[in-house]
Amino acid sequence: MIYADTALGERLIGLLEQIKKPNDIKNINPSEYKELAREIRRFLVQKVSRTGGHLASNLGVVELTMAIHLCCDFPQDQVVWDVGHQCYTHKLLTGRQDGFDTLRQYGGMSGFPKRGESDCDAMDTGHSSTSISAALGLAKARDIQGSDNKIFAVIGDGALSGGMAYEALNNAARLKSNLIIVLNDNQMSIAKNVGGMSNYLGKIRTNNNYTELKQDVERILERLPHVGNRLTEKIRDIKDLVKRIFIPGMLFEDMGLTYIGPIDGHNVAQMVSTFRNAFKMNEAVIVHVSTQKGKGYPPAQKDPSAFHGVGPFRLSDGKLKVSKGNVLSYTDVFQDTILKLAERDERVVAISAAMPSGTGLSAMAEQHPDRFFDVGIAEEHAVTFAAGLALGGMRPVVALYSTFLQRAYDQILHDVCIGGLPVIFAVDRAGLVGSDGETHQGIFDMAFLSQMPGLTVMAPKNIWELETMFEYALTLDAPVAIRYPRGAAYDGLGDCKEPITHGKSEWICRGAEVVLFAVGNMVEIAMEVVTRLREGGLEPTLINARFIRPFDEELLRELAAEHSLVVTLEDGVISGGFGQAVAAWYETAEDVTMEVINVALPDAFIEHGTVDKLRRKYGLDANSVIDVIQAKRRKE
Amino acid sequence: MIYADTALGERLIGLLEQIKKPNDIKNINPSEYKELAREIRRFLVQKVSRTGGHLASNLGVVELTMAIHLCCDFPQDQVVWDVGHQCYTHKLLTGRQDGFDTLRQYGGMSGFPKRGESDCDAMDTGHSSTSISAALGLAKARDIQGSDNKIFAVIGDGALSGGMAYEALNNAARLKSNLIIVLNDNQMSIAKNVGGMSNYLGKIRTNNNYTELKQDVERILERLPHVGNRLTEKIRDIKDLVKRIFIPGMLFEDMGLTYIGPIDGHNVAQMVSTFRNAFKMNEAVIVHVSTQKGKGYPPAQKDPSAFHGVGPFRLSDGKLKVSKGNVLSYTDVFQDTILKLAERDERVVAISAAMPSGTGLSAMAEQHPDRFFDVGIAEEHAVTFAAGLALGGMRPVVALYSTFLQRAYDQILHDVCIGGLPVIFAVDRAGLVGSDGETHQGIFDMAFLSQMPGLTVMAPKNIWELETMFEYALTLDAPVAIRYPRGAAYDGLGDCKEPITHGKSEWICRGAEVVLFAVGNMVEIAMEVVTRLREGGLEPTLINARFIRPFDEELLRELAAEHSLVVTLEDGVISGGFGQAVAAWYETAEDVTMEVINVALPDAFIEHGTVDKLRRKYGLDANSVIDVIQAKRRKE
Repeated sequence: MIYADTALGERLIGLLEQIKKPNDIKNINPSEYKELAREIRRFLVQKVSRTGGHLASNLGVVELTMAIHLCCDFPQDQVVWDVGHQCYTHKLLTGRQDGFDTLRQYGGMSGFPKRGESDCDAMDTGHSSTSISAALGLAKARDIQGSDNKIFAVIGDGALSGGMAYEALNNAARLKSNLIIVLNDNQMSIAKNVGGMSNYLGKIRTNNNYTELKQDVERILERLPHVGNRLTEKIRDIKDLVKRIFIPGMLFEDMGLTYIGPIDGHNVAQMVSTFRNAFKMNEAVIVHVSTQKGKGYPPAQKDPSAFHGVGPFRLSDGKLKVSKGNVLSYTDVFQDTILKLAERDERVVAISAAMPSGTGLSAMAEQHPDRFFDVGIAEEHAVTFAAGLALGGMRPVVALYSTFLQRAYDQILHDVCIGGLPVIFAVDRAGLVGSDGETHQGIFDMAFLSQMPGLTVMAPKNIWELETMFEYALTLDAPVAIRYPRGAAYDGLGDCKEPITHGKSEWICRGAEVVLFAVGNMVEIAMEVVTRLREGGLEPTLINARFIRPFDEELLRELAAEHSLVVTLEDGVISGGFGQAVAAWYETAEDVTMEVINVALPDAFIEHGTVDKLRRKYGLDANSVIDVIQAKRRKE
Repeated sequence: MIYADTALGERLIGLLEQIKKPNDIKNINPSEYKELAREIRRFLVQKVSRTGGHLASNLGVVELTMAIHLCCDFPQDQVVWDVGHQCYTHKLLTGRQDGFDTLRQYGGMSGFPKRGESDCDAMDTGHSSTSISAALGLAKARDIQGSDNKIFAVIGDGALSGGMAYEALNNAARLKSNLIIVLNDNQMSIAKNVGGMSNYLGKIRTNNNYTELKQDVERILERLPHVGNRLTEKIRDIKDLVKRIFIPGMLFEDMGLTYIGPIDGHNVAQMVSTFRNAFKMNEAVIVHVSTQKGKGYPPAQKDPSAFHGVGPFRLSDGKLKVSKGNVLSYTDVFQDTILKLAERDERVVAISAAMPSGTGLSAMAEQHPDRFFDVGIAEEHAVTFAAGLALGGMRPVVALYSTFLQRAYDQILHDVCIGGLPVIFAVDRAGLVGSDGETHQGIFDMAFLSQMPGLTVMAPKNIWELETMFEYALTLDAPVAIRYPRGAAYDGLGDCKEPITHGKSEWICRGAEVVLFAVGNMVEIAMEVVTRLREGGLEPTLINARFIRPFDEELLRELAAEHSLVVTLEDGVISGGFGQAVAAWYETAEDVTMEVINVALPDAFIEHGTVDKLRRKYGLDANSVIDVIQAKRRKE
């Protein structure tokens, strides 16, 4: 297969061009499936090389998606893609070729399944391990209505480490509804998979000679000497016993599910016939397919983690077009910080849920392997495991993306906060994350963490403060969350190094009339606002909130002396957020009068697009903030 | 064993009296273990018959707890009791006999493990399926510190249906830390267990002749004719193969865990020797013990569900002292309502997470078994399964207690709300629940549900309104949560039957100056406040909020014309709750002036005690509200 930085020639998409709408794949001659798969891979690699996007997982499921489409009639039949970032071939085969030019861009095609985009997308997904639950719901709804459409769940072996998937298997075993659960086994989450289930799947995969061995043993058992009725009776169901020894997937069969596999996930014909047979069984069937992440594009095949989600790259060798260069992210700063803390304090341990690299824990994993734990895609366990470590005298740091921390709401509240345990939450990708869109924006954490009794919630204004906040958190004997955004870390305001005091905010600029009260990375925006307001002759005060909870009530009272308007700035939903807490405080406080404006995200799911674009749209950029302030002042 | 309504004679607690502090059980002669178990059961039955509490589960684990205590040195060694309500014998054996007179009463002993009560309680627990995660954390902390204390997790087969437990097993299999996971198999959650795992455990239990059969087969295999090297080689690890056929627990072994069992959970000596051997293996070992819920007290043995959690009862026959009689709870009203809706609308289906009876779904289960689903203790799956059902055209009603709904925060947000799916959440036990205490209070739901875009959140003032709200919810094509408290349903205000309009509150009394703006069952309290304020010559307005979200902004503006003070009343935490949203609205609204007082629970975990007592303590009773209003008015 040749990849070059040229436009797609017509020759390259001869077969793909025949697929203009759902089910068109059925008109392709089976002898051309291999060529179609090649075309799809070429198409995906070329498109993603320009827009960026999820690549390795999509290259892995080209034939699997083709096989599913050959068995289905869309939109009656339904496929729930777990997580959903592997849906590109599905989008192609349902007629969304044109969308790939605007993939993950504002107003363009989403990188995830979206019901609003096509009635062939069964569900809007983004988080892991939900597909079996949703597909089982679809299957039961179908049964109750007496329909007979087909339902697929496609779940990776990584997502299978999420407890929800097990809860769903447990229920699927009981309900016996007609449903195919495709276990897409590529031995990877974003990182290499870990844990008992992963080892188990590995054992299945490496036992290639099952069939042969099974036949041998059956022959021997037939030749067994006569040993009396008692035993003969006991082993009368000899086939089941043999199955028990030699058939892989007994773990699933033990739960009451039918298991078929492992089969080659790059052999379309074999998968089609397996799926057709599986539906005839009329129950929940697990079909275990082995696929290769990144298949067909050598750079992605060699380093699937790097090509999990990528920016635009050079086709010929996979080099990123925009290299990260010297841009330091908060994740990088966290990576250095936790290492420093771990060296200084032997109680420090770190926990990741299948994303050691994304969360900046790779170095910790290498240098302190005994004090680093990757628990798999299992945020609930990650947090309660940390609670146990804290109870045992450790100082665990749990690093999760804000959006995935949502999964552990109850574990933070019930297992960490009730006990007041010293667990530190490193909440990465907090705020707007950009092109992954609604399922991945980190915009709820301030609201849900702020209602947890005893939890301290902080956000740093810049690089220095992130490090300092982790150092500070380690001095507290209580739970702490530190939230910081995706992307380049702010290195401005280098002179503002007021030591951290619990619940106290930091003065950045002292002015009068208007206060900008900003959380985390909104301090940078607020600085821009200050500069521009100064040009207009206004000298506003700028406060770096530092503490979202407990917030600085004393300061709020103090501000009232020389100011009449407080503008809160945060990159989270307005309801239950920082700004509303400040507003409610002023409204209910005795003897204080203040006007408050909350600059925050609306109570809505925020679509994909660049962070800058979204900030402008939702009024979180400097221009919008200035407009709001000036409109308010004109009124008065 | 004789149970009579008499005081405990000294004879009855002869052995128990020798246990005054942790580890004292080791001084008891093994020949007296049976008698000690009898004494413990008598003690527990007599005490719980007076105070109420969890009984059946505690009677089931008497010998198990004794065996654990015989193997442990407290407090160095640690036991994490999953859920925790089965810890009564543990409390007895750690010297807390006296506490049983005040069990679950305000200021008295908790019905759950509490670190604040004893250093022999490893963790404060209350929710299900967390024990393995926490114990694994404790075990790794011990390993890192180079200690060698013993760690136990005790988890029921019911709790094993929670996905977190599986996530933890998955990680335990990998970490190989020395840890005993006792699988306390009584075939019950609160209700009978369901699902694939439950069937699997059933199969293990009924295969009693494993050992015998295993020996037979080993003999046969030895007699096998010589069949050439190829096969001999393949089956050289014959013991493993035999184990694979005949040893129960291969599901766990397949995951990489060592499994021992099932053993008799009422045989102290066998358990002690098994635990000692298991610790020698120096890895995570599952010990599967079979116990009987309610053992030793015939009424509890016969109906363990009824004796899961009970009020005071008559010893001789187990009859409740205070019969429920004609008191109608909101759960009862919900039970009738969902039946009515299900009969009228074929799309209505109901989902429970192992609590069909507690949530009022038993009648639905009986009368519409094809439209009722008990998914086990698996709230995450319950919600996403409902999302799937809704996508398939059904109108699922998920009935969960408020505190357990916390488990599904992300599933509500990500799987239901992003898609705007018409799932109805019946949020039972919302608000203060009383004697179960901090882990079970339903005081966070308003705060966390109010930040979810597109979710409508309602609370009824009385019986009529609960029913009407469910009818109304079914007319919306969007997600809805309806929250209602534990205990007797309010049947007052029968004349207030204003039809429900989206986002609109209901006027109860029209007055001036002061507005009481009450949520759900706080309307009843507010009525009392109104009556008493009228006596003092004040004629306040009373509004039934009905909608917590979206709340009635138009009304807030309207109220400003003739009122100067709004008092919000809700039985949830203040941060992010209804009152703060109202206060923030007034603070940030243009051209409206209003004083606001928020009556709500503080940001704290609320201890156990009667609801009335807790309301008084935290200022949610009529007296406190009147005091607050009068203090405010005096100031002005």
